[in-house]
Amino acid sequence: METNIQQVEKDFLQYVGKIRSYGEAIGVMYWDLRTGAPKKGVEQRSEVIGVLSSETFAMSTSDEMAGYIAQLSTPEAHTYISEVTKKAVEECKKEYDLNKKIPADEYREYVILTSKAEAAWEEAKEKADFSMFQPYLEKIVEFNRRFVEYWGYEGNKYNTLLDLYEPGVTVEVVDRVFGQVRDRIVPLVQQIMSSTHKPDTSFLHRHFPKDKQREFSLAILQELGYDFEAGRLDETVHPFATGLNPGDVRVTTRYDEKDFRTAIFGTIHECGHAVYEQNISKELVGTNLCDGTSMGIHESQSLFFEKFIGKNYSFWKRNYDVLKQYAPGQFDDVALDDFYRGVNESKPSLIRIEADELTYPLHIMIRYEIEKGLINGDIEVKDLPQVWNDKYEEYLGVRPSHDGEGVLQDVHWSGGSFGYFPSYALGYMYAAQFKAAMLKDLPQFDELLAEGKFSVIREWLTENIHQYGKMKKPLEILHDVTGEGLNAQYLIDYLEEKYSRVYQLV
Amino acid sequence: METNIQQVEKDFLQYVGKIRSYGEAIGVMYWDLRTGAPKKGVEQRSEVIGVLSSETFAMSTSDEMAGYIAQLSTPEAHTYISEVTKKAVEECKKEYDLNKKIPADEYREYVILTSKAEAAWEEAKEKADFSMFQPYLEKIVEFNRRFVEYWGYEGNKYNTLLDLYEPGVTVEVVDRVFGQVRDRIVPLVQQIMSSTHKPDTSFLHRHFPKDKQREFSLAILQELGYDFEAGRLDETVHPFATGLNPGDVRVTTRYDEKDFRTAIFGTIHECGHAVYEQNISKELVGTNLCDGTSMGIHESQSLFFEKFIGKNYSFWKRNYDVLKQYAPGQFDDVALDDFYRGVNESKPSLIRIEADELTYPLHIMIRYEIEKGLINGDIEVKDLPQVWNDKYEEYLGVRPSHDGEGVLQDVHWSGGSFGYFPSYALGYMYAAQFKAAMLKDLPQFDELLAEGKFSVIREWLTENIHQYGKMKKPLEILHDVTGEGLNAQYLIDYLEEKYSRVYQLV
Repeated sequence: METNIQQVEKDFLQYVGKIRSYGEAIGVMYWDLRTGAPKKGVEQRSEVIGVLSSETFAMSTSDEMAGYIAQLSTPEAHTYISEVTKKAVEECKKEYDLNKKIPADEYREYVILTSKAEAAWEEAKEKADFSMFQPYLEKIVEFNRRFVEYWGYEGNKYNTLLDLYEPGVTVEVVDRVFGQVRDRIVPLVQQIMSSTHKPDTSFLHRHFPKDKQREFSLAILQELGYDFEAGRLDETVHPFATGLNPGDVRVTTRYDEKDFRTAIFGTIHECGHAVYEQNISKELVGTNLCDGTSMGIHESQSLFFEKFIGKNYSFWKRNYDVLKQYAPGQFDDVALDDFYRGVNESKPSLIRIEADELTYPLHIMIRYEIEKGLINGDIEVKDLPQVWNDKYEEYLGVRPSHDGEGVLQDVHWSGGSFGYFPSYALGYMYAAQFKAAMLKDLPQFDELLAEGKFSVIREWLTENIHQYGKMKKPLEILHDVTGEGLNAQYLIDYLEEKYSRVYQLV
Repeated sequence: METNIQQVEKDFLQYVGKIRSYGEAIGVMYWDLRTGAPKKGVEQRSEVIGVLSSETFAMSTSDEMAGYIAQLSTPEAHTYISEVTKKAVEECKKEYDLNKKIPADEYREYVILTSKAEAAWEEAKEKADFSMFQPYLEKIVEFNRRFVEYWGYEGNKYNTLLDLYEPGVTVEVVDRVFGQVRDRIVPLVQQIMSSTHKPDTSFLHRHFPKDKQREFSLAILQELGYDFEAGRLDETVHPFATGLNPGDVRVTTRYDEKDFRTAIFGTIHECGHAVYEQNISKELVGTNLCDGTSMGIHESQSLFFEKFIGKNYSFWKRNYDVLKQYAPGQFDDVALDDFYRGVNESKPSLIRIEADELTYPLHIMIRYEIEKGLINGDIEVKDLPQVWNDKYEEYLGVRPSHDGEGVLQDVHWSGGSFGYFPSYALGYMYAAQFKAAMLKDLPQFDELLAEGKFSVIREWLTENIHQYGKMKKPLEILHDVTGEGLNAQYLIDYLEEKYSRVYQLV
């Protein structure tokens, strides 16, 4: 028995390694497409990606895979195989079940629908005409309602979709924490709106040459422990980080010469994602566990870097002078305090991806409530523009003048990604909660930043979070690190304290 | 019958398309590895390339492939299927037969040997110690002698290896043309050596900033009809061009601030390779015919660009002023005539890849004679240093002082690429022969270059050569374009005329 199971384990890991290899090849091609691949080659390249993706899908739903899962999931097998293999089998089983429960014909139809829907969404957004996108979205919602039935659900139907992106997190949890955040942030936003101590932000829009922004971005990546022997920085239109393997985790950024924040804070954000993947344990390389454990935990790392480091006063105490070296003369008349207050401006706005850290969670809550309503049949697609605009008015005090800056602004729904949005806000909460736990171990957090000893912080994150990859589920990591479940209070406290300071509230 | 065969044809083309897709994915990863992939990711990336390569090999030697070949090679099938399919089947059959005739165990052993041999060669070259590489090379030669037996041969054993790279070309042909070239070039080189009108070459080594060289390289690529919507220029250590598909054919170059020729003529060379692949008929995309037809024809295009365009007086009549814009002041004291003579300097040297166009074929002939001797058992590996040095003295009048600048200089043999070298020299001859044919259609060739009307020349090449991809064999193209077989006279005439002019021989 032992020998047999160990052979099956070996074969299984090799099979998983093969699937992973295809994924890495696809990852390189996506990175390439988004960082300068010549446009005339795109059609054929998409074909190539399609071929490899189909193979990957076929392998992960094959009879061979079913065999491995069956043989390696028994209690007896569990006594022989490694912890890594056990977790790897679990991941494979989850994916296998999801893919197998949807009838193949229906899935194919859905893939075609979503690829057409994205093009329709793009045009609808450009023309600010929701009616062009509505029929597609209706079908996509219909499919997702049906998928939930196929997959099954416990409690709220939306739980099943949440679980795709944030395993273990439920509507009950999200309702609770979002409610707490909303109850405290909405009044805080209103206080700030009526504050008479608004930061001066005019300096943010002074001309900052692209090549100098790039040099400063590289310097900051270095400062934050990004390993350039295991990555590179490139330019793109919609910035992202991509972990091909822990030895090759690339970041991208976009340069706006009229607003340096785009590149600088964008780079710091992607750096957080990248440092996570660069520090996953080598033991997991080539397995399906060599990844961030969830969307939310991934986002907790990028937001920790962007907000808790990049928007931190002590960080700039050290790095403001460095910035000035790359922008000669440009900030000479801006004191550090004014710089800090300027980059931390908060203002209710219509567009999520341009929102500041205080109002951002409110954008997410609106989407969450809408998605939950759609999946449970409490909201219908045709009513979305009205519902959307009303919620923006209620939560943020602003109302879109057209659907292009309203309900059509995000790509997610055109691809059927329901359940994804909450992870952005959960990431914030995780980040704040990690920060509080970190302060117990590293009470000198601010001094470390001011002294350029970021490596101590990075090592804490690696020790507690990064190294595990998918070996621990998100709520498991959260509990192991902080000793409790999801607790919104840390984020609320952080935001109240910080924005009271920035806006000099009493 | 018809319907059945047509279904088989469709399935076959899809299968070939799949193999091709894997090849393209591998191509993107190789390009990436050579243009800036972070070093810590290389090991895992090599693993990924290995996985996809094995799959490709498995598909091209599978029973499914054997079935397609059998069904589509009958005279009856030929009445139904397209010309493209017929040629595609031929290519598959050739590859299938080659791979199937070698026992799998032996092939595996050979792959491992050559990968170890490359590392051994690198070290041996660095230490200039042939004895470190000798045992590997002995085994590699042994394997190749055996492969020739497995594959079979007609006439000379070396024919089988020549045919791998230059289908249809035999020892008989190569002996004849190389003999003719040698008989005329060796004395010409001696004449030049004793000429008293040597060009001044000191200006070649003036400092030329890298970014300016890059800008000029981009301008020249544009001038030569390289399509930037179907390609890009990047920096690398060992420059190459890679055709991923005709809509994505990339070139790379290397910048030497103390010798601008490296980047400029290197870029023009790779441009010739790239323009070939950018202009292969769209009809062949996704098939195994969407490639240059042979090493030699490919090299004919790069050498046509590098030598017949890039080292042409009329080309510089137009572009010398352009060059000066990117190198302010640098060439002010160098007249066009002196620039032309300087970049066309010829001098016998020890290193092939640094050789000028006149002496280059002699480097190739030496390698050809050695390979032929090794495969036929007339030369033994242990005697190589002696044989090599004697031949250099005989043909070029120079003798290596150690094996690092002698027999160990090229990587080819460590990978077992016997039969490859002759294509470099054949490429020269093809290029000269094409040029002569072109002059009949475009007698105003030099004026076209001087007036910047290169598109006329490029279109002639596309019309006569590029578009066919692998639809025509090398000697078939040569015959269709020039009306005759391989004729060394064109190259000889060109070199004699040109170098008499450069060195003002009487």
